[in-house]
This record gives sequence, structure tokens and C-alpha cells, in this order.
Amino acid sequence: MSTTHTDGARTTAPSAPTSTQDARDLDPAFLLHLGGKVEVVSSVPLETREDLSLAYTPGVARICSAIAEEPDLAYDYTWKSHTVAVVTDGTAVLGLGDIGPLAALPVMEGKALLFKQFGGIDAVPICLDVTDVDELVETIARLAPAFGGINLEDISAPRCFEVERRLQDRLDIPVFHDDQHGTAIVVLAALRNAALLTGRTLADLRVVVSGAGAAGIAVSKMILEAGIGDLAIADSKGMVHLDRTDLNDQKRTFAEISNRAGHRGTFAEAVRGSDVLLGLSSGTIAPETVASMAPNSIVFAMANPDPEVHPDVAHANGARVVATGRSDFPNQINNVLAFPGVFKGAMAARATRVTEGMKLAASEALAAVVGADLAPDCVIPSVFDPRVAPAVADAVAAAARAEGVARL
Amino acid sequence: MSTTHTDGARTTAPSAPTSTQDARDLDPAFLLHLGGKVEVVSSVPLETREDLSLAYTPGVARICSAIAEEPDLAYDYTWKSHTVAVVTDGTAVLGLGDIGPLAALPVMEGKALLFKQFGGIDAVPICLDVTDVDELVETIARLAPAFGGINLEDISAPRCFEVERRLQDRLDIPVFHDDQHGTAIVVLAALRNAALLTGRTLADLRVVVSGAGAAGIAVSKMILEAGIGDLAIADSKGMVHLDRTDLNDQKRTFAEISNRAGHRGTFAEAVRGSDVLLGLSSGTIAPETVASMAPNSIVFAMANPDPEVHPDVAHANGARVVATGRSDFPNQINNVLAFPGVFKGAMAARATRVTEGMKLAASEALAAVVGADLAPDCVIPSVFDPRVAPAVADAVAAAARAEGVARL
Repeated sequence: MSTTHTDGARTTAPSAPTSTQDARDLDPAFLLHLGGKVEVVSSVPLETREDLSLAYTPGVARICSAIAEEPDLAYDYTWKSHTVAVVTDGTAVLGLGDIGPLAALPVMEGKALLFKQFGGIDAVPICLDVTDVDELVETIARLAPAFGGINLEDISAPRCFEVERRLQDRLDIPVFHDDQHGTAIVVLAALRNAALLTGRTLADLRVVVSGAGAAGIAVSKMILEAGIGDLAIADSKGMVHLDRTDLNDQKRTFAEISNRAGHRGTFAEAVRGSDVLLGLSSGTIAPETVASMAPNSIVFAMANPDPEVHPDVAHANGARVVATGRSDFPNQINNVLAFPGVFKGAMAARATRVTEGMKLAASEALAAVVGADLAPDCVIPSVFDPRVAPAVADAVAAAARAEGVARL
Repeated sequence: MSTTHTDGARTTAPSAPTSTQDARDLDPAFLLHLGGKVEVVSSVPLETREDLSLAYTPGVARICSAIAEEPDLAYDYTWKSHTVAVVTDGTAVLGLGDIGPLAALPVMEGKALLFKQFGGIDAVPICLDVTDVDELVETIARLAPAFGGINLEDISAPRCFEVERRLQDRLDIPVFHDDQHGTAIVVLAALRNAALLTGRTLADLRVVVSGAGAAGIAVSKMILEAGIGDLAIADSKGMVHLDRTDLNDQKRTFAEISNRAGHRGTFAEAVRGSDVLLGLSSGTIAPETVASMAPNSIVFAMANPDPEVHPDVAHANGARVVATGRSDFPNQINNVLAFPGVFKGAMAARATRVTEGMKLAASEALAAVVGADLAPDCVIPSVFDPRVAPAVADAVAAAARAEGVARL
């Protein structure tokens, strides 16, 4: 590593630990990351000449010839059936924004280990040094042959929508932008249970969403498709509605199918009297905004690492159910509850895509895992609940078959 | 898998086993390949919420931010320092030719497990659905950030030369086309020892090479650089010389630096009286051609799976030292003797490229491993000799530092 930078930091930050290097040496996250988090290992023996002649030349040539003749055999005789590419361009990484492909790698490695741990899926971090939509689509399509699925990750909106759509049109393997659909599946599952708990149906709920990025739009779409009563979404300029002239295509399309109540003012005005508040931005939500909601209100404050409103404050202002993205509060909305099972199920069915029906099935299955444990502090399972991924996978595979996109 | 193809084969090949599926069920190579040969596993614990908060959000954000500020930290806190991409376009796979990227995957997986087993290097199979040189270069450059090296594999000549050169000019990590340089390193090592054994120096040797593909050209170049007496190369049209008007740029450049003896006739004519015959084609070499060589001749018949001449035939016709690509004959010329150590050493030194000096150092180190075991049936170590990769790696890292391309 560059000692120049370390020395530079020492000079410019005299009140910090003696150097940034020392700070890193004391940080358990840095210690855990030394050498990276994933590795590629052999799953076959390689001890003898005979092993070598089967796994490599000359034996491997027979496998290659068979696949050249019958491409689907790759699902049987290579890693394709259980391996996905986790692809980013590093433009929307966590709350950090556009930090580039290399700096995004620790997140992609983290994703890979979650895929393995929770879904038994092998995942390969792919960090692309390209941001143009055409070039992203082209590059990802070119590297797709060896993979059974593409998990798009941390690609900024609105490019992510087009990248996903065009890739899925082109490829016959599932393409899934986790920041959109993973979040949407988990939020909808938690919302189903919160509605159940408070004696309401989805159709009863009026929802206001803060944040019209990839996650905000995808969550809102999915909730609408699931039959929510009404939903309006706010971006940084206020409520999204059809009279606005500054909307991108995605938001305009969305305005046409949402906000039946006709909210045209501020976010706080729209929230007044609503049942559900979904925070998917990095902003803050005032206590009085929560207090202005209808009784038995539901508040999901999912900004990371700092929720838009602290759960205690939300509860003190009338919220019955509160969820966040944090593991140290109840009801953690975490994508890891969705993507391992979604890919596991889609790949088990050898689905050609992930349909809306498959996502809804995933969400319902996830919600159902909570079962009799349903309570204000338990509307979504723990990320370590071993029932989650198998339940989601089974539901997704069944839905893929029901919807005619399965090949197995 | 498609049963149509299986049934089709049953119809057209009635004397074969009852179906191709049955044939595969009896073939140990297919059985070994079921489910593929490599997987991606976690190298850190992930059992508790605390583990998750360090390996993933929120802890991972600190690593990302640090790398965004100081990119070289990726070598410390991600898999980059020990991970290479094994990249192919599937155009020149083993002896099978242009079978496409998907059918090439078993070879890339095999390569990945050899990298791990012999070099402790993590390798990721990348099979690209693109063959245009510009697009190949662009695609590989875009996916390079997460990798510490690029091993190009089974890309057909002459495109492979330009792809490698342009990529290496563009990237600050080693780019190494194994079919060229891996083969060259091993052949030169074996040739050094064969010369030693027969009481000659490299400068004493007159070499004729059959095959002017990627391996033939690269081996010949390296041998010339090592100070061979003379070397001439034959392609499918006969000996390569400057009077020919049908040479591509690569062969023309090569004609300028080789064939000082002025061979202009057939391959067999050029071989007459020569000391060394290197077979790097898929052709055959007649017994009388071997018999026409100088005394104490050296024959490396490296076509796979069928050597250009059987070792017994070569010996019976006067060859003192014979090598092949096969594991069931002595003196196996196998790239696995080179590439794991080359990348291990280059990456340990954090070299920005693999120089000629590094390749020569690798070859010398590999030859030296044979030591006192030197004999006609032992001019190159066994692929399972555990001394090989560390010896090659140490020599390569030292050469990288001596040549000023190391960053560590």
C-alpha cells in the first residue's frame, strides 16, 4: 500500500489516531477484510495424474465437445447452474454514491458471501469500469455465457432501469437488480404483516414514500401491483405528480399509476393522515410528521446507517410498527432475506427471467415465515432464520413454473 | 438437458452405447464434471449479526470509502491481490478450435482449479461472447478492476497477439496469454536441460519448429531470445521465410529474425541435420524425418492428444530426448508447470506486467528444479513436484523487481 497517502493523512489529521493505518489496524471491519472475503476453490479432487487427466486435458475435451453440440449440458457439467455474476459499475454504492468499480468491490464480495451462506449460490464479483448504458448492457451480455444469472448491484438510477430491462430482453437467464427488487420484496413482506397485525388489508392502506431512486420506484411499483389502497412518492423536489415538468421517464410513468389522492404539496403535507410512511432516501423525517399520520401508523425508515427517524421517536409519535435497515433494531429490512432465495428458486427452475409473479410469490413466502411470531417488533424474519431462503426459493420456483418461464 | 439431441444421437449412431446420455454416465470425466469443478466460498466467518455488520453493511462502507480514497488499499482489503480472471472467447480451445465461450467453460474451470491447487491463486472463469479484437480488448479492460491479473486463454491467433499487447498497454496488472508464454517457458526449460544432458549449449542448437500458431510463434521467439543457434519455423505451407508473400504481420516479423540458414523448402528438408524438432501443430512427423536429424537429436512432439510422432518411434529413429504433452509418457510439457508460479510471483511483487526477463527467469528456475535428476526421461519436473511453483514464483518476483516493474 502507498505509504505516501498514509503519511499524508497523518499530516492533515493530527487529532486522529497517529495514522490512518493505525486506525485501520484497530477497526474490526478492516481486520476482517484483510485479504478479501471470498475465494475460488476446487470442488473436485486433484491429487493424481488420473485426476488431472479427467479435470483437465485430455478428459475435459469430451465435456467441451458435448457442450458445443448441446449447450444446455453446461447446466449439468459446469458451474453455470449454481453461479451468478454480481455486477456493478460502482455508481451508487450503499449510501456512498459514485465511488467507482474498484471501491465497490468489498460490497460485491460481501454479496458473494451472502449468496453462498444463505442461498448456496456461487457468486462472482464483477466490477465494471464503464457507466454508459449501451456499453454496460453490451459488456454484461458479453460476459454472461458462463453464468446462470446476473445480479445487478449498486448501479445508479435511472440508468439501472434501462440496463436491467435491456439485459433481460437479451439474455435467457434471470437478470435481477437487487437494489430495486430485493428491497421491494422485503418491504412488501413486512408491509403485509404490518397490515395483518393492525387488522387492515393492503387495499386499506394509504402509503407515502420518501425517495424516488431505484429502490423507491421499485418498492412503490411492487406495492401498487400487490393491491395497495393508494401510494404517492416524493423526490427531493416534493411529491411526484403529473403536473410536474421536471420528471424523468421513469417518474412520469410512475406518476400516471400512483397518487390517486392528488398530493401536490410537500412530503410532510402528503404524510398527514396516511397509514404508511416508507423512507428510502437519506433524508430525515420530523417527529411531528410521524405524529400527523393516521392511528396505528406504520413507519419503515430504511436509510442506512441512519434511519430517517429513530424507532423510539417514531413509536413515541404514534407509530405501531417500525422497521429500519439496521440489525440493532427490530424488524430489519435487509435484502439478504430475498436475493439468495430468489436466485436459488429461479435457478432451480432454470427460469429465463424473474417475473412480477415470482417476486410477489417471494414476498408472500417471506411474510409467511413469520407466522405465529407476528408482533409489532416481528413483522419480518431474522436474516439468520434458516427457513427463509428455502421458503422463498420454493415459492419462486413454483411461480416460475406456473408462469411458464421455467425450463426445469 | 435436451432429450432431442440425445435421441437424435441414438438414431444416427446405433453401434454406440444405447444413448449419449448413457455414454456420459459411464465416462469418469463426465462424472467428475457433474455440477462443475470450482466454487466461490467465504473466507471469513458469517455466523452472527456482528459478523454480518462487519463483512457487509454497515462495516463494509468504511472499507469502500478507504479504497475510494486510496485505490491501492484494494490489494490489502479485497481479493484483488490473489485473484486473476481466466478469460477466453472460445475460439481456440484445446485441439477443438472455435467451439464458442460456453463450451470453453470446462477448460476455464479446469484452469481455475489448477491455479488454486498449484499456485494458491484464486481464478475466475470468464467466457466472453465476443471475438472482435477491439471489442475483446474493451470488454476485458472494463472488467479488469476487481482482478490482480488477466490470464488470456484459448484465443485464436493472430488476434491473441494484438489483444494481449493492447490490454497490457492499457492495464497496470499482468496480462499473460498462457497458450503462448506458458508453453514457451516450459519448452525452453526442457530444451535447456536437454542441451545440458547432451553436452551442448543453446547456441549450439539448430531448431526447426512445426506450427506457426500462437504457441509456435511464442515458443520460437522465446527460444531465439534465450540465444539459440538458429531456428526456423514451418506453417501449413512450408518453411516461413522472407520471400513468401502470404505471411501475416506476425509471421513476417518473425521471418526477419529467424531462419538464418535460409530454409525455403519443405519442413522435412529443413529438419535434415537439425538438432531439435519442436512439434506445435496437429500434424504428424514421419519416422524418417526424425532419422534424418543430427546425432543426439531432441524431439518435442507436443500435439494433444496425439503427439506428431510416438516417443518410441522417435527414440528408435535416433532421438536422445523426447518430450510430449501427455502425462502417460516421460517429459510432459504442461503449462501448469509455468502459469501458477508466474502469476504467484508477478502478483507477489505486484508487477505491472510480465516482462521477457520474468519469463526467462521462470524458465531457468523451472529447468533448475530438475537438478541432479537430469536424464533423458527427466528433462522437466513432474507437474506434481511441489518445488516447481514456489521456485518459479520466487524467480519471477525477483526478476520483476530487477526489471523495475514491481510495486512491492
